[in-house]
Amino acid sequence: MIRNIVLIGAGNLATQFGYSLAKKGFNIRQVYSFTIKNAEILAEKLNAYYTDNLDEIQLDADLYIIAVKDAFLAETIEKLPVVKGIVTHTAGSHHLDMLLKFDNYGIIYPFQTFSKDKEVDFNTIPILVEANNKQTENDLLEFGHKVSQTVMTCDSDQRKQIHLAAVFACNFTNHMYAIADEILKKHDISFDVIKPLILETASKIDVLSPLEAQTGPAIRGDQNIIDNHLKMLSDESELASIYKTLSKRIMTNIE
Amino acid sequence: MIRNIVLIGAGNLATQFGYSLAKKGFNIRQVYSFTIKNAEILAEKLNAYYTDNLDEIQLDADLYIIAVKDAFLAETIEKLPVVKGIVTHTAGSHHLDMLLKFDNYGIIYPFQTFSKDKEVDFNTIPILVEANNKQTENDLLEFGHKVSQTVMTCDSDQRKQIHLAAVFACNFTNHMYAIADEILKKHDISFDVIKPLILETASKIDVLSPLEAQTGPAIRGDQNIIDNHLKMLSDESELASIYKTLSKRIMTNIE
Repeated sequence: MIRNIVLIGAGNLATQFGYSLAKKGFNIRQVYSFTIKNAEILAEKLNAYYTDNLDEIQLDADLYIIAVKDAFLAETIEKLPVVKGIVTHTAGSHHLDMLLKFDNYGIIYPFQTFSKDKEVDFNTIPILVEANNKQTENDLLEFGHKVSQTVMTCDSDQRKQIHLAAVFACNFTNHMYAIADEILKKHDISFDVIKPLILETASKIDVLSPLEAQTGPAIRGDQNIIDNHLKMLSDESELASIYKTLSKRIMTNIE
Repeated sequence: MIRNIVLIGAGNLATQFGYSLAKKGFNIRQVYSFTIKNAEILAEKLNAYYTDNLDEIQLDADLYIIAVKDAFLAETIEKLPVVKGIVTHTAGSHHLDMLLKFDNYGIIYPFQTFSKDKEVDFNTIPILVEANNKQTENDLLEFGHKVSQTVMTCDSDQRKQIHLAAVFACNFTNHMYAIADEILKKHDISFDVIKPLILETASKIDVLSPLEAQTGPAIRGDQNIIDNHLKMLSDESELASIYKTLSKRIMTNIE
């Protein structure tokens, strides 16, 4: 049974994950960060030890959760001592095999977007689990179900596809909001006016498929409005080109 | 005071608007649609008369709400008899001046996305109002405040910009969901797994600006993952090109 946990990382995901685990009664033993100040800040909130030296990692925890930037993942795994507990990483696009040097290892991928200043409810976050053997998989599934309502196993290839899909559904979607913000700011209109629309667009997806939910000039084939909008974007060739490409895709994407 | 209303149109917006107005105690007198069946269906629900002939429009209502497809707007206005009440249209991208032939006219633009099968709460929808004279503006503002918590005046040029912003924040955002759906379907993964992420991405916007809320490989400058994703999209040149363009924009868009 998993009880004692070492958090390796103190960024957005580690912070939110740490809060949630502490609330659920898990014992966060230690927090590691490359930057000692970040380790200290998070450790204090979790009543844990902290370090910026991977050689000082406690060796007898039940679970190690590596939640560092993808760019530092390989290096962090390399420097991490061979511990007895289960070692996991949380990176959507990285293979299970990166953890080959340990005995029991796996993936805990909380499929959500994390910002430090926006608390999230882990109960509603799908947790995607993978492990190198059945016992470890069972341990991670049991752990997952204590953290979230939705836990599923998925292999590294599926997880990569899910991560790619998320870049469109989350990261690029957020950039669409940023573009809207740019347009509104330029004309002294508050971004607040568009917030209900953004929320409704997302919540529609609960009851309609994206194809059913599509609205706007492109799906209506309203070339008049499209030409008008492209004229309004004539000083913004990049935005005009994004507008054209996406409109064309929507028009040809009808079921 | 506005009490008796004629609805000109029976599509998504007219349907949702009609339901909401009836609930608030307004008297929907008559529903017009180009397609008599659609007029009948909506009129029955609203306990109203119906017609497919603009010459039969009742002449003594307080308010006429034109909510037809943008493509039919000019023609509908042309054929509409000169009535005494306030005549309004609801089209984000069309100018107030289209209604010049009437005495009192204006815009009631409920700034939201409407699908027939997804009921919306008008209380939370910003209503953008414009009118050709002060008295009509006051009448429409008073009417707006009975329908929604958020009512603002804005001129036709601002409204056009708001509509353009909405194409990005709503229509193109929904298409990002559709792309995610495509990717997941292709790999036998249920779209359900991504729904919490979509909702969280939208609700973040309530507390963070889009620039603050941006996450993902592009904002982290994670070229490794980006290259990997582009490789995964090598059979989908259009998606790869969208991925590249948006990632580049996110990278150069940092405050």
